[in-house]
Amino acid sequence: MKENTARSHVLPVAPTRGRLRPLGLDEVRITGGFWARRRHVNATATLGHCRDWMERVGWTGNFRAAAEGRIHRDRRGREFADSELYKLLEAMAWEAANGHDTRLDADIAALTDAVAPAQQPDGYLNTAFGRPGQQPRYSDLEWGHELYCLGFLIQAGVAQTRARGEGELAKIARRAADHVCATFGPGGIESVCGHPQIETALVELARLTGEQRYLDQAALFVDRRGHRTLADTEFGRAYYQDDLPVREATVLRGHAVRALYLAAGAVDVAVETGDDALLAAVVRQWEATVARRTYVTGGMGSHHRDESFGDDFVLPPDRAYSESCAGVASVLLGWRLLLATGEPRYADLAERTLFNVVATCPAEDGRAFFYANTLHRRHRGAVPAADAVSPRAESGLRAPWFAVSCCPTNVARTLAQLPAYLATADDHGLQLHQYADAEIATSLADGHGVALRVRTDYPSGGTVTVRIGRSPDRPWTLSLRVPGWTAGATAWLVDPDGVRRAVAPGTAEVTRVFRPGDEIRLELPVAPRWVRADPRIDAVRGTAAVQRGPLVYCAESVDLPGGHEVDAIRVDPSAEPADGPDGAGGTVVVAGELATHAEDSDAGWPYRPLGRPAATSADRAGIVLVPYHSWANRGPSTMRVWLPTGEPDRPGEPDRPAESDSTVAGG
Amino acid sequence: MKENTARSHVLPVAPTRGRLRPLGLDEVRITGGFWARRRHVNATATLGHCRDWMERVGWTGNFRAAAEGRIHRDRRGREFADSELYKLLEAMAWEAANGHDTRLDADIAALTDAVAPAQQPDGYLNTAFGRPGQQPRYSDLEWGHELYCLGFLIQAGVAQTRARGEGELAKIARRAADHVCATFGPGGIESVCGHPQIETALVELARLTGEQRYLDQAALFVDRRGHRTLADTEFGRAYYQDDLPVREATVLRGHAVRALYLAAGAVDVAVETGDDALLAAVVRQWEATVARRTYVTGGMGSHHRDESFGDDFVLPPDRAYSESCAGVASVLLGWRLLLATGEPRYADLAERTLFNVVATCPAEDGRAFFYANTLHRRHRGAVPAADAVSPRAESGLRAPWFAVSCCPTNVARTLAQLPAYLATADDHGLQLHQYADAEIATSLADGHGVALRVRTDYPSGGTVTVRIGRSPDRPWTLSLRVPGWTAGATAWLVDPDGVRRAVAPGTAEVTRVFRPGDEIRLELPVAPRWVRADPRIDAVRGTAAVQRGPLVYCAESVDLPGGHEVDAIRVDPSAEPADGPDGAGGTVVVAGELATHAEDSDAGWPYRPLGRPAATSADRAGIVLVPYHSWANRGPSTMRVWLPTGEPDRPGEPDRPAESDSTVAGG
Repeated sequence: MKENTARSHVLPVAPTRGRLRPLGLDEVRITGGFWARRRHVNATATLGHCRDWMERVGWTGNFRAAAEGRIHRDRRGREFADSELYKLLEAMAWEAANGHDTRLDADIAALTDAVAPAQQPDGYLNTAFGRPGQQPRYSDLEWGHELYCLGFLIQAGVAQTRARGEGELAKIARRAADHVCATFGPGGIESVCGHPQIETALVELARLTGEQRYLDQAALFVDRRGHRTLADTEFGRAYYQDDLPVREATVLRGHAVRALYLAAGAVDVAVETGDDALLAAVVRQWEATVARRTYVTGGMGSHHRDESFGDDFVLPPDRAYSESCAGVASVLLGWRLLLATGEPRYADLAERTLFNVVATCPAEDGRAFFYANTLHRRHRGAVPAADAVSPRAESGLRAPWFAVSCCPTNVARTLAQLPAYLATADDHGLQLHQYADAEIATSLADGHGVALRVRTDYPSGGTVTVRIGRSPDRPWTLSLRVPGWTAGATAWLVDPDGVRRAVAPGTAEVTRVFRPGDEIRLELPVAPRWVRADPRIDAVRGTAAVQRGPLVYCAESVDLPGGHEVDAIRVDPSAEPADGPDGAGGTVVVAGELATHAEDSDAGWPYRPLGRPAATSADRAGIVLVPYHSWANRGPSTMRVWLPTGEPDRPGEPDRPAESDSTVAGG
Repeated sequence: MKENTARSHVLPVAPTRGRLRPLGLDEVRITGGFWARRRHVNATATLGHCRDWMERVGWTGNFRAAAEGRIHRDRRGREFADSELYKLLEAMAWEAANGHDTRLDADIAALTDAVAPAQQPDGYLNTAFGRPGQQPRYSDLEWGHELYCLGFLIQAGVAQTRARGEGELAKIARRAADHVCATFGPGGIESVCGHPQIETALVELARLTGEQRYLDQAALFVDRRGHRTLADTEFGRAYYQDDLPVREATVLRGHAVRALYLAAGAVDVAVETGDDALLAAVVRQWEATVARRTYVTGGMGSHHRDESFGDDFVLPPDRAYSESCAGVASVLLGWRLLLATGEPRYADLAERTLFNVVATCPAEDGRAFFYANTLHRRHRGAVPAADAVSPRAESGLRAPWFAVSCCPTNVARTLAQLPAYLATADDHGLQLHQYADAEIATSLADGHGVALRVRTDYPSGGTVTVRIGRSPDRPWTLSLRVPGWTAGATAWLVDPDGVRRAVAPGTAEVTRVFRPGDEIRLELPVAPRWVRADPRIDAVRGTAAVQRGPLVYCAESVDLPGGHEVDAIRVDPSAEPADGPDGAGGTVVVAGELATHAEDSDAGWPYRPLGRPAATSADRAGIVLVPYHSWANRGPSTMRVWLPTGEPDRPGEPDRPAESDSTVAGG
């Protein structure tokens, strides 16, 4: 693996080796379009919303209570509440680096001041453990989340340093990391945290400081896991990936967020230590997970019970968990794998997940969130209380805050660092991975500066125009990802001379001496299309979904005429979906009908002899679909992504006599 | 509602009013066939198995530890462990009434001796609460299960009294019930137990003793529920039905066992108090639950997370919870509704549930059990440890004991009391509800004796012959349930004169002066048939299942050639299923194919543009199905009830170019 010397310090992930070199937040700026709007809402609404809620529910106050010796009776929130403050601090740091709002520095300083006095002299920091009247430190590694919280503290410190230079938060984080190494290093506690997260944090701190011991400690945590140092649980040890060593596992399993954070940490360790076998193990797990355990949205985790991956192909849309944090974690893992290998498949999945999970989580106003992201909502849910915390996965609408509120701050920090995921560099040139209206300026391996202007209204439109601003007087290669979703249609690349060629999914390249003003144009076929699932995904047999570019679409009851709910929909996939009357990128219209089934009478038993098709009256209709990420912004509704295409019943079978009323449970 | 004067005292449920009068275990004897075999295994293996495991895991020892003042440090098992001993005592009492094994009386005496010293002077009895070093009594009504445990103690005392006459256990139970009335009656704690169960127990004790205050207390508990006297939970108050009063609810919801136990208690109260509105409320809930929230097996509860009913039509076969105890509870509720109303639909569902849930729970040898009853097993599970407790719902095979081990004893008590569910009497005659080889002897309303001999190998065969043994010299009516599953085929009734007439689902009657030796024959069409689901049960769209009489069938991988797993199966429902070569009632064979899909290569992303059917190679095959209740008795296997019938894809659509290898997450 090649060594990397980053040109920027403002990097969420800064590996010292790898196929691609990341660009920093000072090198990439998103200037318009889908993500610019999302990021504006994040910066101007979500960050303050999270800050205010944490004050209100007492999670910020926990630190004060700890410092004042009254935490044993006054503590609020779950055992991992500290981590939300740290994730918010990280989000604020990256957002401050974007330069949009200098008031953020004051917020960061105030929150840091709240945290600082709660740190113990030896660097330990947790408001739920270790003080008089509390459980002892590390007495519950399975569920206590202490290292998990410290991991987010360390990441916040790293972000603060990279965004604004070393300050108080960085010092707190360093002391915490030193405490972790002293406590869990050789000769210390030989176990791991029930929730992985410390691993990526320690590697990133090693990258920031150059200190080997943080990397060694992260490697130790990765290697220790899977050796059953944690107690068994009702969900099995796979719940926290302590069932099998990372090197031996063949698929991601157990709690989805834990599995993905651990995999990200393992990639970080593998990259920094040159451990190709470890990297290969994670790649293998990623491949199996994507092929068998991932929703069409990119969402991961189908079990509500333990927030875990299900068995292969268990992907029920109506019980999809698809936690927002698992989406974030998948993007973080994919980014590390992309940097390490350069393979566009990781950016493909990241794009899908960003548009259909990460972007789905926050409401349009940035002040309410989905914790879980179902693909089928069967009844109109209640409106969550505006002034109370909600259960994490039960609402039909986004909720302002949760008892377990990991997702709002996680999505906030992802949106804040998003520009860093657009592009990379290597010895040959620049690579564009995600498409947004953006400006990019960096220097190539030989030190020559290069600047690009990316113009696009993607994903509404499929045209991405790259205009060269500055370029050395020597040839280099501009690489553009051709998304996997273009398979079956044709994408085109137009070079600065106007030569147009079809490009296959993967990577399209132009190598030449670029001149300022040169334009390269990528034309992606974003027309809406039907998608079907592998037949082993039993839960969506007999249905099809619509995708338009990277966007998954859904039907929402508020768009149906006649008061129909989405379960009335039967679509006709022999007709191609078309853009709706509002023009490209908004709604899509598909042919179909709205059926009223005889079974709707609910007379009795819902299973009946085959060949007795239910009497159905149906109205032909053009059915309007909306981007999945936009659903549930217009009040309670029913919704579904996978649309039934009709019954594969026996045609022409004569009706049999109806059941009598007395045989409700009989058919 | 009519008053009832039961002729027998050996009755699990003895309402004083209702449409039908139950027969006791001294009036109905099962003499052969399916249930006789199951009951023999239950009596000779399961009861001792449960007794030994409870000794081994310390749940019996808890009572000794309580009596000896060391329970605060020595207690074993979950908070509801006491109840398992009581359920076993109830099972043993009914089994003793069956007269098979007098050693049971010694077992009952020994267990009663273990329990007795743990009772407090005021009647309170629970090994998890109330002693020094333990949580105070009733300090955790939400999760403590104290009244739930006392309910099962009371039911055991009632069973013991009815089966063997009042003994020590009955006295313990009376003292416990008096304590409950004193503590939760007017002026006492104004709340309910998180887990309903005490309601049915108190009503049955009122029926046994004639004491009104037990009935009043049960009515108070039913009326109190739904008024939010319990704390909210992560699952909402619907989890323990404290969200809505019983009278206002329109469907069963929340934790399935809790919902069904509560409904049974509400029926008991309604019947005894003549509260028709309350009865109507439960009937309404039952109807909606059966129409929208019940598996084809009769199983109830689709959520693993909270063991609860899901939303309407959320019935995923591969995440079916369908807890064995919910099956038991549904049978108990249905029996009460049948006695109250006389409507055969309740016996229809009970039959389905008995054959496909209750009979599925125990292994053939009666020494291992399913806690949950999935309808689709996707991978061959591990073999549960023979000498350790298992997690409750995760195994692919039946397990000998669980950390939460409610199902073994619950099924044991149900099998022990099963003869009581076969037949009833009323002023007009006798009614047969469930079919088994049996002898029935009772007296009619006018006191005249009547005796029947039922001969059948049901459900293998469909012929049920009723031979009159003794009969008064006056006309009376023999009623036979014609199961709802006969709809669409024809059932026949042959009267003693040999006259044969078609009978519709519901009830068939013969009214005449019967003579000893007269035979009435019911011929039920048990040939195997395809069944399909309401299209709103999305999870089984594009599939069909086979039912043969009341038995649901499944495919199990051990019966497939070539090492195929069940996901290779595609069936052809245009051909009727046929009995297998082993003859009627064992296997069934359906036409179909075993497909090897291109997707099996697992190259990449499992969603692809519609119209690109996967390359499939398939071998035509006769696919062998087995009764669902018999699955997983031949080692680890994959299994499915709902069998795919083929893809409703666009026919004749030309293939599109394949995706490149680099676009794993793209299609």
